[in-house]
Amino acid sequence: MASPGLLVQKFGGTSVADVERIGHVARRVVATAETGKRVCVVVSAMGDTTDELLALSARVARAPHPRELDMLLSAGERISMALLAMAIEEQGRRAVSFTGGQAGIVTDTLHGKARIVHIKARRLREALDAGRICIVAGFQGVSTEDDDTTLGRGGSDMTAVALAAALGADGCEILTDVEGVYTADPRIVREARKLATLSFEEMLELAASGAGVLMPRSVEVARTHGVPIHVRSSFTDAEGTWIGQEVAVTDGMEQPIVSAVAHDTSEAKVTVGGVPDRPGIAARLFRPLADAGINIDMIVQNVSAEGVTDISFTLPKSDLARARPLLAEVREALGAEALSEDDGIGKVTLVGAGMKTHPGVAADMFDALADAGINIQIISTSPIRISCVVRATDLERAVQAVHDRFGMAEASSVREELASS
Amino acid sequence: MASPGLLVQKFGGTSVADVERIGHVARRVVATAETGKRVCVVVSAMGDTTDELLALSARVARAPHPRELDMLLSAGERISMALLAMAIEEQGRRAVSFTGGQAGIVTDTLHGKARIVHIKARRLREALDAGRICIVAGFQGVSTEDDDTTLGRGGSDMTAVALAAALGADGCEILTDVEGVYTADPRIVREARKLATLSFEEMLELAASGAGVLMPRSVEVARTHGVPIHVRSSFTDAEGTWIGQEVAVTDGMEQPIVSAVAHDTSEAKVTVGGVPDRPGIAARLFRPLADAGINIDMIVQNVSAEGVTDISFTLPKSDLARARPLLAEVREALGAEALSEDDGIGKVTLVGAGMKTHPGVAADMFDALADAGINIQIISTSPIRISCVVRATDLERAVQAVHDRFGMAEASSVREELASS
Repeated sequence: MASPGLLVQKFGGTSVADVERIGHVARRVVATAETGKRVCVVVSAMGDTTDELLALSARVARAPHPRELDMLLSAGERISMALLAMAIEEQGRRAVSFTGGQAGIVTDTLHGKARIVHIKARRLREALDAGRICIVAGFQGVSTEDDDTTLGRGGSDMTAVALAAALGADGCEILTDVEGVYTADPRIVREARKLATLSFEEMLELAASGAGVLMPRSVEVARTHGVPIHVRSSFTDAEGTWIGQEVAVTDGMEQPIVSAVAHDTSEAKVTVGGVPDRPGIAARLFRPLADAGINIDMIVQNVSAEGVTDISFTLPKSDLARARPLLAEVREALGAEALSEDDGIGKVTLVGAGMKTHPGVAADMFDALADAGINIQIISTSPIRISCVVRATDLERAVQAVHDRFGMAEASSVREELASS
Repeated sequence: MASPGLLVQKFGGTSVADVERIGHVARRVVATAETGKRVCVVVSAMGDTTDELLALSARVARAPHPRELDMLLSAGERISMALLAMAIEEQGRRAVSFTGGQAGIVTDTLHGKARIVHIKARRLREALDAGRICIVAGFQGVSTEDDDTTLGRGGSDMTAVALAAALGADGCEILTDVEGVYTADPRIVREARKLATLSFEEMLELAASGAGVLMPRSVEVARTHGVPIHVRSSFTDAEGTWIGQEVAVTDGMEQPIVSAVAHDTSEAKVTVGGVPDRPGIAARLFRPLADAGINIDMIVQNVSAEGVTDISFTLPKSDLARARPLLAEVREALGAEALSEDDGIGKVTLVGAGMKTHPGVAADMFDALADAGINIQIISTSPIRISCVVRATDLERAVQAVHDRFGMAEASSVREELASS
């Protein structure tokens, strides 16, 4: 007899913020199990627990030891997962909770941002095969040195996707406080529309461009292992957004040209001015930043005039303080004339798998911004993405203008446009 | 080179109730380490954390699964121990925290009241030998089936004493919110005096008779392994009460006849009246209670009259509800005439290792109670203990009367009395 289908369901902190919501999640999980599926649930810490624990640690130590911070933070999921297991048992189904370590999630020793090395899912498999609903602590694992570790931001999604891959699940539901992935942030674009489907590649670009719903790491793992993700609301039964292989996603219908607009205000722009334009300049400029683990995003180099050039690039605002002394040194070494920074910028990004075969999308986007009187500072593109840096004060208008220009509020109109092109 | 001395220090929940107190404990631990000793700290959950977690669990399930309850509760020490380790590192000493499982505390699978099977202290020893201050979660272990377990009431003391035994520590300090063991509860007897020393046997009898400062289980383990215990305040540097082998305790001076008075209101009295006085009656009465895990404390059987007798005994009030149906069945089976229960009783207990060689102590105690007009319902004795059940409303006066009669407020007077006898 073949094993029944297996589903991984991940509930975020908002979905288990109090005992009433935990009761609601328990009913939802039981309802899924009643359909005959085996269910493995991944759960975050309740509400603001993680932030509260971080605040406590900040009160006892200026720079808490990363190992001890992980020990502290991992208490959060322990509480939510045990309560959820109890609540499910209260409804008459057998449930059992597992810490990251007990679930066999083995990580490296990089406390605070550990990476999963492998998953020994034997205990989970046995419990699932015995008809138990398994509750696994998100965000945590045990290191190769037998210490508790946490996986960093978005770690619970990573746990869910990695477990779905290890267990050979049919899919991974990410249940959250939004109804899915939207064509733009509904707080900015009132007529933003929930997307029914997205390819892994599109979701990766959106996630990397500021769409907070999923972290790029989890999407990468899902793509590598072919795990379909369903992002949906934990508060309603409405279908959310399916993220999967392109073929499966388009489901027989034509691929829309563009899918969504993302925006991001987490980066700052640095400009190194009056740099002698010699080969190797870029390497000398960016090597020290790379060595310090600082991710550079967009880079633009002006056309050289009289043997000197300007180089601008963006980096996370949170890395600015660490980057400053490195940049001052490099400026000295390169003999650059000026060094300036600007944290008043924002990035608007258009993503769509259909762009690959439809030239002119970039031009339409630039037009839309120009018509709205918005100046573009830096441009960066990939086969399925166009990003523009604009003034932070122009960002919301930029998102709205791009959303309007591509008629993203109506799913059909995009398809019609495609059909007529 | 011989290893430096090793001390286990246990801090209860009140001592780590907030970040300020955790900072205070950190300074105290560092001060101990500065004397050159290796230090292993055992810590309870912060303040009311355990009760708060229990309250949460009661809101999601009527009868939470014991395994999940242990998973939940073990989060408490995880928080306090990580914060304490951070606070110690902040003061410039290396510290590392260990869960019960990481500390090698292996238990049986009786969730909620697990017993320690053995301790694999390799990780702790290595860390201590490397000069680290070790912080271990009290109250918890990992079962032989690799699940998190808790050790039940007084579990953190048990962790401390068992670790002291496993590590071959010089002693085990129990740092708490009282200054030591007193001749009586200072809330009842204003002139109660802190005891400098007590034998394991005396402490065992006191602990079993309602003195809340230590649980009998921990004292038994300390006695078996010869681990001296020092009960003292975590808020002052004052010497507390040393508990050890009798010879070491008396320290060359004469043993006082009596040491302390304990009292207890946690038990109820049951009387089975008009029982046919045949051999085997007691066994038939108490077997079902024993099989249900209900501990019977004091038993008294009246002298038989006309072939029937009354049997009275005490048991924990918390077991009364479970005992009732069993007793009703037994009454039926035995053909007893009456069954009554009384939860308005209290027990006053006098403990002293010197009693063994000094007859007449029991008579003096009965005299003291008679002079105070207090009726004795049940009496039970051991070589170093006399317990009397009285009306609960008489209990405080009984404690005071016994304390007065034996002049326990003055340490010297007891010794003088002994010298003149």
